[in-house]
Amino acid sequence: MRAEIITIGDELLIGQVVDTNSAWMAQRLNEHGIELYQITSVHDDREHIIKALDEAFGRVDIVLTTGGLGPTKDDITKHVLCDYFGTHLIEDQRVRAHIYDLYKARPDVLNRLTATQWLVPESAEILPNRVGSAPLMIFHKGDRILASMPGVPYEMEIAMEEQILPYIIDKRQKTVSLKDKRPIIHKTLQVTGIAESSLAILLEDFENTMPEGLHLAYLPKDGVIRLRLSSYGALTEDEMQTYFDRLKDLTNTYLVADTDEPLEVIVGRLLKAKGATIATAESCTGGKLASLLNKHPGSSAFYFGSVICYDNSVKEQVLGVSSEMIKAHGVVSEEVVRVMAESVHELLGTDFSIATSGIAGPSGGSDAKPVGTVWIAWATPQGTSAECFHLGKLREQITDRACVKALVGLIKRIK
Amino acid sequence: MRAEIITIGDELLIGQVVDTNSAWMAQRLNEHGIELYQITSVHDDREHIIKALDEAFGRVDIVLTTGGLGPTKDDITKHVLCDYFGTHLIEDQRVRAHIYDLYKARPDVLNRLTATQWLVPESAEILPNRVGSAPLMIFHKGDRILASMPGVPYEMEIAMEEQILPYIIDKRQKTVSLKDKRPIIHKTLQVTGIAESSLAILLEDFENTMPEGLHLAYLPKDGVIRLRLSSYGALTEDEMQTYFDRLKDLTNTYLVADTDEPLEVIVGRLLKAKGATIATAESCTGGKLASLLNKHPGSSAFYFGSVICYDNSVKEQVLGVSSEMIKAHGVVSEEVVRVMAESVHELLGTDFSIATSGIAGPSGGSDAKPVGTVWIAWATPQGTSAECFHLGKLREQITDRACVKALVGLIKRIK
Repeated sequence: MRAEIITIGDELLIGQVVDTNSAWMAQRLNEHGIELYQITSVHDDREHIIKALDEAFGRVDIVLTTGGLGPTKDDITKHVLCDYFGTHLIEDQRVRAHIYDLYKARPDVLNRLTATQWLVPESAEILPNRVGSAPLMIFHKGDRILASMPGVPYEMEIAMEEQILPYIIDKRQKTVSLKDKRPIIHKTLQVTGIAESSLAILLEDFENTMPEGLHLAYLPKDGVIRLRLSSYGALTEDEMQTYFDRLKDLTNTYLVADTDEPLEVIVGRLLKAKGATIATAESCTGGKLASLLNKHPGSSAFYFGSVICYDNSVKEQVLGVSSEMIKAHGVVSEEVVRVMAESVHELLGTDFSIATSGIAGPSGGSDAKPVGTVWIAWATPQGTSAECFHLGKLREQITDRACVKALVGLIKRIK
Repeated sequence: MRAEIITIGDELLIGQVVDTNSAWMAQRLNEHGIELYQITSVHDDREHIIKALDEAFGRVDIVLTTGGLGPTKDDITKHVLCDYFGTHLIEDQRVRAHIYDLYKARPDVLNRLTATQWLVPESAEILPNRVGSAPLMIFHKGDRILASMPGVPYEMEIAMEEQILPYIIDKRQKTVSLKDKRPIIHKTLQVTGIAESSLAILLEDFENTMPEGLHLAYLPKDGVIRLRLSSYGALTEDEMQTYFDRLKDLTNTYLVADTDEPLEVIVGRLLKAKGATIATAESCTGGKLASLLNKHPGSSAFYFGSVICYDNSVKEQVLGVSSEMIKAHGVVSEEVVRVMAESVHELLGTDFSIATSGIAGPSGGSDAKPVGTVWIAWATPQGTSAECFHLGKLREQITDRACVKALVGLIKRIK
């Protein structure tokens, strides 16, 4: 069973909005064994949308669209779908009641444009949108279906989770033969400290002896390579595990994780298992590392807090780095970053801490310490250690990579 | 002159990677008056890539592809393009020399897989990739061109900026008539405190009297609505400015900004103009606000640092919030957030500060203070003020919206 996504909106094609929806939907579809064949982003334009629908239905059975469902003039998806499926708009009293309920605290929103939101295509199945005003619509074209959802990410996510995915899965149970229910399995491990091409040579025999239908993909990012093994109905779970275990053995020296989890999730799991806590003292990463550590629910169990010491005065006054030390060694130095790490873990009373100090650029570099130089220190119950890295030339790349190095270094030290 | 983007890679279609490249490329193309018609994401699959190329060349003159250029087996773009354009691979000595130079400090990377990177399609124009090993390739198909770039974002960005965009612009100068050089103009303003539908009613007369070729789009996100006025060759710059000024007048009560700049960039500009500095004390936003404030180059001129006080002990020990106050009012309260704001601006010696304390969930909510409740305080040279917000139910949404409220509140207070 294959699906395609069509994302609708001029904002995607002028680059005003990054399409984060498609990746989220792709993950959920794959987890349920539905292969995503293509993602297409089109303008809020009648002919363009219709062309994309025709092409998608020529390839797959399930088409998911996002966007273009707002109450304003630029949103035309509902009208285009009406024409495409040969139907027209009627009032839906359930949707009307839902919208009245949704805006009961904000009666000013119940204006005549909002009233267009309870006009729905007569032939479509209408599913409730618990968190927004635009109803979810499912259209049928023979055996094939189209589901239309809002483009607002959290509305789309709740719609997919609670309505659209269960609908598709239920439909598949009823109509698809067993053969087509073969599992899609993806397993990912993460390695560091080896170049992509060297890794590929290391894995050459493994790759050459993989059975048909098994794929290995290399995804390098910020100094970590994710190695993804994918089976599209070729292997059972057990067979897949055997190949994955072999891959783990072969890459063992470089292995950071044997899951696709974000590094900060792995850190959180390791810290929680130890009942340990952590703080950060950040200069060049400027709070990015803190944000990662508290991004996920439950982080208050291990993450205490941070001192972001962007200006040297904060390093001196809050973290006790002496101005003499800064003069002698520079602010991007092993000496300073060690003091930062030790101070913040004493100040906040945590078991572990990480400190970063580097030159994120574009200015501030020198011959001795070019842009991209980053010192990272880790204070642990076993003592403090520090490393120096050279992380490229671009500001965002440098700070992203510094966070990866900081987390990888912590994982090694906790283990 | 119209272009399309084809992004190539299984990782996009299983949701392992969010496609941030397309939005970046879309912006740059639009700035140069090149309309982006469609974005298509396809698998690392020969037939799929060829089908997408055929369809794209049926619609536009310029096709930009990203991805699939690595040295490993899963990367097939170069080979597929060779077949598609009827050419074959030859050694390119310039690319070879560049790769030797690129890896001179890491000779282990100069292995036989890396050596495949200096094999290039004979009929393609080869442009240097300053920061990576995969060369940029430009293929010709009659008057139309295809440019192939790596998928790694910073490699793509440098490739576009330094090689591909100048190439396309130069080609256009030579071949396109004046009529086709009509400007594409986008102008965006940002408003807050009004529902999308109410805003559309406010602007109904304006929209109904817009000339053909002028479009108005509504982009709501995190409590701010971006209003984008777009002209595809319909208006001169002056005419466009007149319409934009009218839009500003009409929305004046709700106006946050008359540019599409991120709010943190506006904050930085306002602070720098005053020679003022800022710090943050963050509980629920956990460093996200700090990261925003120091995201862009030059932020060290106004951003000093932050105390991320995720755990109450940090609020007490570093920011002097008394445990009695927390007991009496709760940690998510006006009292606590005011002390946080005032303490951090005294501790770090800044002119302004922002403090946040809220319930990001999923747990920790109560009837009196449900998940989504966020208190924000702003300390300014004129005194301290605080507001309470209810920002939804989802963790990431709550912290993103809290950052928007914090920045909007600061912009109002600086002005």
